[in-house]
Amino acid sequence: RINGERLWASLMELAKIGATPKGGVKRLALTDLDKQGRDLVVGWGREAGMSITVDQIGNVFMRREGRNPALAPIMTGSHIDTQPTGGKFDGNYGVLAGLEVVRTLNDQGIETEAPVEVAFWTNEEGSRFVPVMMGSGVFCGAFSLETAYAAKDTEGKSVRDELARIGYMGEQVPGQHPIGAYFETHIEQGPVLEDADKVIGVVPAVMGLSWYDCVVTGMEAHAGPTPMGLRKDALQVSTYIMQEVVKIANRYPPYGRGTVGMVQLFPNSRNVIPGEVKFSIDLRNVNDELLNTMHEEMLAFIDKTRSDSGLAMSIERVSYYPPCPFHPDCVGAVREATAKLGYSTMDVVSGAGHDAIYAARLAPAGMIFVPCKDGISHNEIEDARSDHLEAGCNVLLHAMLERAKI
Amino acid sequence: RINGERLWASLMELAKIGATPKGGVKRLALTDLDKQGRDLVVGWGREAGMSITVDQIGNVFMRREGRNPALAPIMTGSHIDTQPTGGKFDGNYGVLAGLEVVRTLNDQGIETEAPVEVAFWTNEEGSRFVPVMMGSGVFCGAFSLETAYAAKDTEGKSVRDELARIGYMGEQVPGQHPIGAYFETHIEQGPVLEDADKVIGVVPAVMGLSWYDCVVTGMEAHAGPTPMGLRKDALQVSTYIMQEVVKIANRYPPYGRGTVGMVQLFPNSRNVIPGEVKFSIDLRNVNDELLNTMHEEMLAFIDKTRSDSGLAMSIERVSYYPPCPFHPDCVGAVREATAKLGYSTMDVVSGAGHDAIYAARLAPAGMIFVPCKDGISHNEIEDARSDHLEAGCNVLLHAMLERAKI
Ligand SMILES: NC(=O)NCCC(=O)O
Ligand SMILES: NC(=O)NCCC(=O)O
Repeated sequence: RINGERLWASLMELAKIGATPKGGVKRLALTDLDKQGRDLVVGWGREAGMSITVDQIGNVFMRREGRNPALAPIMTGSHIDTQPTGGKFDGNYGVLAGLEVVRTLNDQGIETEAPVEVAFWTNEEGSRFVPVMMGSGVFCGAFSLETAYAAKDTEGKSVRDELARIGYMGEQVPGQHPIGAYFETHIEQGPVLEDADKVIGVVPAVMGLSWYDCVVTGMEAHAGPTPMGLRKDALQVSTYIMQEVVKIANRYPPYGRGTVGMVQLFPNSRNVIPGEVKFSIDLRNVNDELLNTMHEEMLAFIDKTRSDSGLAMSIERVSYYPPCPFHPDCVGAVREATAKLGYSTMDVVSGAGHDAIYAARLAPAGMIFVPCKDGISHNEIEDARSDHLEAGCNVLLHAMLERAKI
Repeated sequence: RINGERLWASLMELAKIGATPKGGVKRLALTDLDKQGRDLVVGWGREAGMSITVDQIGNVFMRREGRNPALAPIMTGSHIDTQPTGGKFDGNYGVLAGLEVVRTLNDQGIETEAPVEVAFWTNEEGSRFVPVMMGSGVFCGAFSLETAYAAKDTEGKSVRDELARIGYMGEQVPGQHPIGAYFETHIEQGPVLEDADKVIGVVPAVMGLSWYDCVVTGMEAHAGPTPMGLRKDALQVSTYIMQEVVKIANRYPPYGRGTVGMVQLFPNSRNVIPGEVKFSIDLRNVNDELLNTMHEEMLAFIDKTRSDSGLAMSIERVSYYPPCPFHPDCVGAVREATAKLGYSTMDVVSGAGHDAIYAARLAPAGMIFVPCKDGISHNEIEDARSDHLEAGCNVLLHAMLERAKI
């Protein structure tokens, strides 16, 4: 069993770097604060006897050697960058749970056959630089190192320059680092476990996701003198599309998701009929065929709305991640560890993307979820219970040992 | 008949002050540009032999004496301040049409029994300082001089200081200026005349309007991991209210109007279910009972939506202007002048507020509309035909003469 108090203490210590007045953390990727956080975690890794490798995109791998150094390491990890209004646990928990596993192995003098590694990936959040999950994305070849290096923040600072500046541009070529199996512990970021009063979520898969930008163009006109029948109200037409996003998701339970999160009106004035509305659409499903059906239904509805309304409209897919089923070996290891430890459990499909989906392109992978308060994350009030975090870390320990072999 | 070319030339001359690259005008109330515009118009008034009075809120009255100076003046006017992306005609036309009437009377050596006055009112647009129609509002006692003086722009500059700075804080107490009758020529700001191919709109009344701020509060949550059934999506609930605004207006044709022009989401992020949505509602009708019915139906729908959805919502009325029927004498004078001059015509209820609704609280009032291109105003592409502007000015001349008596 791991040491829950030590895990909690490390989480609280790391959370001091970039702590916000409301109890959250703001530690954006590749800032001075990110460097401080990285230095702290790397220092802890060294204290725990681990060797450190940094690759060219700043991914950090901390290694505890195994009896057979030729075996690919059993890896766990996540990220320590945060949202601008982030919490203490998102990502950070996955990294420090890995550290706690190694500390526990050290305490108990347990040797493993395969090496054990704890990784943290660069810029998972994507708040400062897009694309999201940058470090693991470059690692698995989803996009190139050059693409990632060229990404700039709103001030025009590039990933390449910021990585060099904080001293985390390593030498290893991304992806030239073997992985035997990959586990990631994470707060659920949703309400399912809490709602069902379960401690451990076994994650069989991560949903696929399609992101769209939709623009409806009408004609801006004065709200008073323009008769209802002569209007081209871009907002009114948009509301039917916005509702359809949710209706489509509801037609494909239980894993259909449909969200309009971002809306912008032009000119956005009280007494002007909106001439243009831009909004985002986020569709998800764990089944790629169903996700594609949802996509087709969305496009068909927009075509119908275009011809019914006579307004111009465009829809562009700006991101697509296919669903990511995790490997039966890793999912099984998590399930068995949970059963052995006697925690209440259920399967929870991950609705959010994680570094594990990229790791899964290179090696068997699996995830372990623990509840977070009210399902809230990406918010300074994000919270999680220390006994739940401890339980998740125990499951991680046993799942990793099962793969690494004692 | 007035001189249409001279009217057009003056409009184009005034439009140079604050001209924008796209052919519009930006001459916000009480700026240096407003002062330049005021000085130009006052200079033209003096050249036309008129005497000038400025009141304490900066309303300017230019007077051509009548045979009987004891009679209250027959007044026309409008405003010369513009929207940030305004056009050449909105307001400006009403003032310069008045000037052209006086120039014509001078050319033809016509004396009138009652004095004739051309007014321009301070800050009609309300873009820089709220409330809108400030000068005419103070003049008729709708709100106090102190309220108007205290209004500040986004930089914190007050109406009082800016009026003094540009030299247009006069001495006359607002409202202490008699009006015998008031006419205002204006571009329609709507598509009705153009749609019906008519030149002159006789304006029997201005619609009443109610403005609301509505806030729907749900719970922000991650778009992926939050199942559809556990969401409190503030945008989805809001869309039904937004649609109802239009449905209510459509239930009360032909003068019901319903518009949602301004929408703001929190946190407005692509993968976050909106936790709060704020939006404006603009309801109008020319019949106050129907406007009140629309108001009641709006509130009832929000109550129903609140209890159906379980989400918190608030609605606050932030402005209310009752419908303003114009005086039969003035409406009749406009109608007869139009008939006499042989212009094609129809009645057009004004959907937009104008200084005339405040003037109408103190004296018989009426308005004359001319078409504007595609019904567009509050836009740099606002446009109007010089023959239409000339026709409106001819109608103004004859309506004013009918009231002022030759
Ligand atoms: N974990 C997480 O918030 N990932 C961001 C991408 C997503 O919206 O799923
Ligand atoms: N004429 C005009 O745009 N007035 C502003 C108030 C309104 O929306 O009617």
